[in-house]
Amino acid sequence: MNYEVLNINSVIEYAAGTPQISAILGNGDYTAKEVGDGNLNLVFIVDNLSNGASVVIKQALPYLRCVGESFPLGEQRMLFEIRSMLFYERSVPALVPQIYHSDEAKYTLVMRNLSEHIIMRKGILECVKYPKFADEITDFIAKTTFATSVFGMDSGKRTKLTEEFAQNTELRKLTEDFVFTFPYMENETNRHNPLIEAAAKAIKSDTQFKAKAMELKYIFMTKAEALLHGDLHTGSVMLNERESFVIDSEFAFVGPIGFDLGAVVGNLLMASIAMDARGKAEYAAWLESTAFEVMDKFAAKFEALLLNGGGAMYGEEYWANTDKSGKNALAQKIIRDILSESIGFAGCKMARRQLGVAHILEIDGVEDDGLRAQVETKVLGIAREMVVRYGEIDSSQKLKQLITDMR
Amino acid sequence: MNYEVLNINSVIEYAAGTPQISAILGNGDYTAKEVGDGNLNLVFIVDNLSNGASVVIKQALPYLRCVGESFPLGEQRMLFEIRSMLFYERSVPALVPQIYHSDEAKYTLVMRNLSEHIIMRKGILECVKYPKFADEITDFIAKTTFATSVFGMDSGKRTKLTEEFAQNTELRKLTEDFVFTFPYMENETNRHNPLIEAAAKAIKSDTQFKAKAMELKYIFMTKAEALLHGDLHTGSVMLNERESFVIDSEFAFVGPIGFDLGAVVGNLLMASIAMDARGKAEYAAWLESTAFEVMDKFAAKFEALLLNGGGAMYGEEYWANTDKSGKNALAQKIIRDILSESIGFAGCKMARRQLGVAHILEIDGVEDDGLRAQVETKVLGIAREMVVRYGEIDSSQKLKQLITDMR
Repeated sequence: MNYEVLNINSVIEYAAGTPQISAILGNGDYTAKEVGDGNLNLVFIVDNLSNGASVVIKQALPYLRCVGESFPLGEQRMLFEIRSMLFYERSVPALVPQIYHSDEAKYTLVMRNLSEHIIMRKGILECVKYPKFADEITDFIAKTTFATSVFGMDSGKRTKLTEEFAQNTELRKLTEDFVFTFPYMENETNRHNPLIEAAAKAIKSDTQFKAKAMELKYIFMTKAEALLHGDLHTGSVMLNERESFVIDSEFAFVGPIGFDLGAVVGNLLMASIAMDARGKAEYAAWLESTAFEVMDKFAAKFEALLLNGGGAMYGEEYWANTDKSGKNALAQKIIRDILSESIGFAGCKMARRQLGVAHILEIDGVEDDGLRAQVETKVLGIAREMVVRYGEIDSSQKLKQLITDMR
Repeated sequence: MNYEVLNINSVIEYAAGTPQISAILGNGDYTAKEVGDGNLNLVFIVDNLSNGASVVIKQALPYLRCVGESFPLGEQRMLFEIRSMLFYERSVPALVPQIYHSDEAKYTLVMRNLSEHIIMRKGILECVKYPKFADEITDFIAKTTFATSVFGMDSGKRTKLTEEFAQNTELRKLTEDFVFTFPYMENETNRHNPLIEAAAKAIKSDTQFKAKAMELKYIFMTKAEALLHGDLHTGSVMLNERESFVIDSEFAFVGPIGFDLGAVVGNLLMASIAMDARGKAEYAAWLESTAFEVMDKFAAKFEALLLNGGGAMYGEEYWANTDKSGKNALAQKIIRDILSESIGFAGCKMARRQLGVAHILEIDGVEDDGLRAQVETKVLGIAREMVVRYGEIDSSQKLKQLITDMR
């Protein structure tokens, strides 16, 4: 570690001494508090009490505490968060917090303080419906992945992009292990509700499931379609009823587009099952239908981008002597594959949240062990089918049917 | 250009003044001749007449002449040839010429002079059967791609590998354009026998074919499975009846394994059709059956490597509570995809050699325009079916059936 880890005193000096930050905060007395969960990063809010100005300063820590005991994790991950957030700010400025400053040497990222927005997972627990979320998150996924696909970016720029993110090996490996491997085998990082012991054991000896999980891991590791956020669950979205912002893109890498889409779909489905068990049937139905809406809206938007796009595939000259059907067939094939893979990825993400190290608030917060076990068992059951049958589930209708069949 | 392009005088000074080269050649008077075809690289043979010692010195030229008129091409391609050849020497030393020296600054590669071997394409024209070729080329493909796949290399090393070859954008782009795009549209680099005008025109307006060719291009551009040679046709093999060597790996990049396999299969099939038309039916049958043998042997070898391998997928602990069927199912799925994609890639390579800038000796050497048109038409017909139906052709048996149906 060759950089200074900030604290609530030094962060004030840093803010005051960095023109790009002090320009935002203005003159006055700054105060700071640390609001991060302490697992991966420091997150400071620095306020100027004299004028109400405020910024968030995020700094990477050189270790990860959430896996039982502290283990080292390179602070370099902040480079990938900085690079991806700067790309997002250029590509979809309305969907990420404004970036005031970043420093790859200090591993810091300075952003707008989203004081009027909350983490989506918390909003879900309060049964808040977000009418614009499906539209905004699919704008985010469709636009950012298209822009970095072979359709939206030339080969030379894609080479640079691939190189900029290739070194994010460490966080990619976390996903390889904690999403696609450890939860389905004996591993000391796993934890689950003792009441679902039988179901957890069943997954670990479910040959068909395990083969498909590895198949999806292979796609995750080899399909370099576009720049992904890499961890796009409902804890990486801050929003209110009017606007949504994506944050925490330290897992960013060039991978399969379905992985970002699946993160959103899987987390909405889990939340829906949890909220239903919490007696919020109508809200649960909204969450489920939002998951389907996300699939549909992504498909429609990505199709429009593909058909109007150019890049390596869609040069008008190439298609000059054909009707539109060839271009359409290719676009449909690409979208079908993305949707189908998103179902498999969503299934892995749903299963691992029941069996692996990291659980989700909506389910873990169900205090009654028996009721929680019902939720976990239901999630696992649906997740298992999504993983095993992902190859044939390439539309929201088919996903809906799968879920209906499991009721 | 910031390096000295060698000539037959300066190459002697270079050899004498470079200890790694003079150690091979020994003391004495050196003579040099240039034997390259002049399109892409200089290839010198430097001999020591006093002891019979000899080396090949290859140097990249900063342009490419074969596309009508000279156009610039970065000499950096030699870096990728050097890096991949050095990797091959470690990985499959018996299947590449011994490397005596390489210099990334001078863009030179110094190798064993394979004086007892000829380019396979020339051996084919002389109807030489190579009984060990199928075995050796599948050793090459299976071992080098496995070693650089997620099964044979850890994530950290794969990251470095990806970075080392990511910048080979220029030669990847040549393939994207000249294998997957230009031959199927109006482009000034295309040339074909006037007698196949109708067939050439038909491909250019064949919506189904063009959509599949672009689908294969998408796989070529996004599937980062393993380090590929990238141009593994029968002009990149020097051999005799006893041993085969792979050369000319300047197109090396991390891509879909089926691309190397398809290059071999497609070039054998084209040669077979050409030699049949030249009245060499029995030799043509050997070439065709060798193509099938290459598919079968690759599949068997890659399967053995997969099932005995470890890497990111095959940790014994992961499969501990299952029977072997899961691991087998995954291996079969990966091999099926490679075989099927190899058929599509082979089809593109066969079609482009009839329609695009670069033709092959076995066909272009047929002097009778009418007979040559018959060969070209037959190749195009089979290639078209291979591209359109590649998704279902995942074994040598199915490829054989396709060819039989086309007779």
